[in-house]
Amino acid sequence: MNLPRGFLASGVRSGVRKKRPDLALIVVGGGSGRGGTGVAAAPATAAALFTRNRFQAAPVTISRESLRATGGRVRGVVINAGCANAVTGRAGHAAARRVQAAAAGLLSCARQEILLASTGVIGVMLPDAKLRAALPAALMRLSSSGLAAASHAILTTDVGPKVAQATYRWNGRRGRLVGFGKGAGMIHPNMATMLAFVMTDAPATAPFLKAALRRAADESFHTISVDGDTSTNDTVMVLASGRLPGPRMAGATSPATASFRRALTEVCRQLAFMIVRDGEGATRLMEIQVNGARTAKDAQLAAHAVATSPLVKTALFSGDPNWGRILATVGRSGARFSPRNVTLKVADLTLVEHGSPVAYRERDAARRFAKDRVLITIDLGSGGGSASRITCDLGHDYVSLNADYRS
Amino acid sequence: MNLPRGFLASGVRSGVRKKRPDLALIVVGGGSGRGGTGVAAAPATAAALFTRNRFQAAPVTISRESLRATGGRVRGVVINAGCANAVTGRAGHAAARRVQAAAAGLLSCARQEILLASTGVIGVMLPDAKLRAALPAALMRLSSSGLAAASHAILTTDVGPKVAQATYRWNGRRGRLVGFGKGAGMIHPNMATMLAFVMTDAPATAPFLKAALRRAADESFHTISVDGDTSTNDTVMVLASGRLPGPRMAGATSPATASFRRALTEVCRQLAFMIVRDGEGATRLMEIQVNGARTAKDAQLAAHAVATSPLVKTALFSGDPNWGRILATVGRSGARFSPRNVTLKVADLTLVEHGSPVAYRERDAARRFAKDRVLITIDLGSGGGSASRITCDLGHDYVSLNADYRS
Repeated sequence: MNLPRGFLASGVRSGVRKKRPDLALIVVGGGSGRGGTGVAAAPATAAALFTRNRFQAAPVTISRESLRATGGRVRGVVINAGCANAVTGRAGHAAARRVQAAAAGLLSCARQEILLASTGVIGVMLPDAKLRAALPAALMRLSSSGLAAASHAILTTDVGPKVAQATYRWNGRRGRLVGFGKGAGMIHPNMATMLAFVMTDAPATAPFLKAALRRAADESFHTISVDGDTSTNDTVMVLASGRLPGPRMAGATSPATASFRRALTEVCRQLAFMIVRDGEGATRLMEIQVNGARTAKDAQLAAHAVATSPLVKTALFSGDPNWGRILATVGRSGARFSPRNVTLKVADLTLVEHGSPVAYRERDAARRFAKDRVLITIDLGSGGGSASRITCDLGHDYVSLNADYRS
Repeated sequence: MNLPRGFLASGVRSGVRKKRPDLALIVVGGGSGRGGTGVAAAPATAAALFTRNRFQAAPVTISRESLRATGGRVRGVVINAGCANAVTGRAGHAAARRVQAAAAGLLSCARQEILLASTGVIGVMLPDAKLRAALPAALMRLSSSGLAAASHAILTTDVGPKVAQATYRWNGRRGRLVGFGKGAGMIHPNMATMLAFVMTDAPATAPFLKAALRRAADESFHTISVDGDTSTNDTVMVLASGRLPGPRMAGATSPATASFRRALTEVCRQLAFMIVRDGEGATRLMEIQVNGARTAKDAQLAAHAVATSPLVKTALFSGDPNWGRILATVGRSGARFSPRNVTLKVADLTLVEHGSPVAYRERDAARRFAKDRVLITIDLGSGGGSASRITCDLGHDYVSLNADYRS
């Protein structure tokens, strides 16, 4: 898949991880073709959402400050895997700054026009010399078809790369969005870092991008990982090269930009699903839809508790129609409701009504719980609040992967 | 171990679980020796703490109401394993009432003088006919040495029985407390039911017992399972036969009762530790001590997040000194603090100071993380709030046990 006009990417080995690519580069450019540095005359506009964890990794702090300093002007993004550069104090911050400065030097731009993202082990100092030494090679390999290499280079325990695209209409023309990301970890409760980068040719202002990204994230990444329940490094970025001719996109809710906003949400949703499906060792997904809650907050509490319950997730692993664990989890979630109003369904089959089990054939329930994707609908019968979460099962591979991850 | 004076117990098979004892009976009595019904002239006084889950199992509702109706007067307790009788609606409530009435009939007492507790699968109707049919056999086997049988009969996925005892001084004499319990499940986040029953010969009033039990639970069961984060059936009971001569114990904080209160806390702490150590498939414990939080609530948020993090628990399983996951979990816990004030120690070894890693030998950290019991101390450097939690690791046995539990 080619990148949208105005972007080049590459992925190389820096040596931080053994024997696999671990450094990705995105550069705003694309006029000069494969092999050149290809830096464009005009920078991209950009917006990003970062983790709300109290411990914010150095690349998060630096990217946030840089975006603020430039008002959302970006020339390049440097992403590394293998070291999160989190909880590394001033020395870690300085190391990240050196990577940023090295990339800026190579691209002949201001330091703050380079954004950073890292994923990997926490509490280990960034081996920034390795990254800086690998940057020239990453620059040499930049290409409009560099997405495959870049999307591979950012993975940690992910089974495979995650890439999504969508198109939109603007000013009578068709534009493109291409995104890539990484997740793994149980996502939810999420200590594994989630990274996502979406590139588009849209002529969008930075404030417009920010507003559109917030809404898209609410309907995608936030259904798999809620505010605050994030790693030290979680980052979602959208970059717009402005190569699609037409007036600037602005006005967060204008109908004219609806096509773009829908497409951005679609790309984010695809990436979010791929991240859950690839949850470390996951074999099965569960979608939890909570309706009829007193408030949206009550619905979120209930859906979140179910999506993060190890007992629900291990039952999902074995395809066990153990709805009792699901309701017991809802009961301890903090959501307010009366048990006797509760209804629970798996797919189209009602299992509980008025808080009591109904007559159903165990075989019918078992078949629905054994599918690749299990939809649980819980109606609390207490109001109009609703929320949904997507989660994956917890099996032996999860334990193996996470028990060994530091090695 | 003999029961305190005034109590008899037994454990038998009712057939709810295949091929293992699943029905325990405690009766206030003991004058008439082994084999008799042994109902005492005087009932025991009792107090209990129940789950705060919105879904409360039928035995919880009935025991709570019964205690209220009698003012804490108890003749017997019927405990069954294999079926939680939770989320079973009115039919489940009626089934539990029939068990209560049957036991009351056999013991010639009022229905409300019988308390109930159940543990097992949620959402399955109680096979009360089996329990009622087994009650006469349970009665026949009542004995002052029936603790071993009773403590076996209440287990589900527990590896083994949990029994604890302590002594106290009152009125110049030595009295006894004997408790037994069951847990398993990850405890925390706890969907597996925790049950504990403590018997004593103390001449205590019910209000005194209630106050003493609350305090004891705060320093024991609540450090492994916090308010609200409980199953549908969690129950902790204390029963006092009053066979120790002397004035009645009353006054929740009187110095004269300090010895008894300490002993009750000690029994509860022992049971709580046994429950965590026996967490499904657990191989290692972690004690998380959070100090220097802005408030006690902040400390609890931080300690709870670490104790329930699957990523921390899988790292603990492999003995991996992955303190980065611990701090990242503290960072998303909702506790308020400044990362640069944070200190983290494992046992006596400081790993993080002022929010940055200090120089230590990996080998020294690894050795401390590989112990059977790992003590993590986190100082948030933000105030005087503190809290502690105990948790166990999450390994392959956890997945196997919980994926198969319904069978």
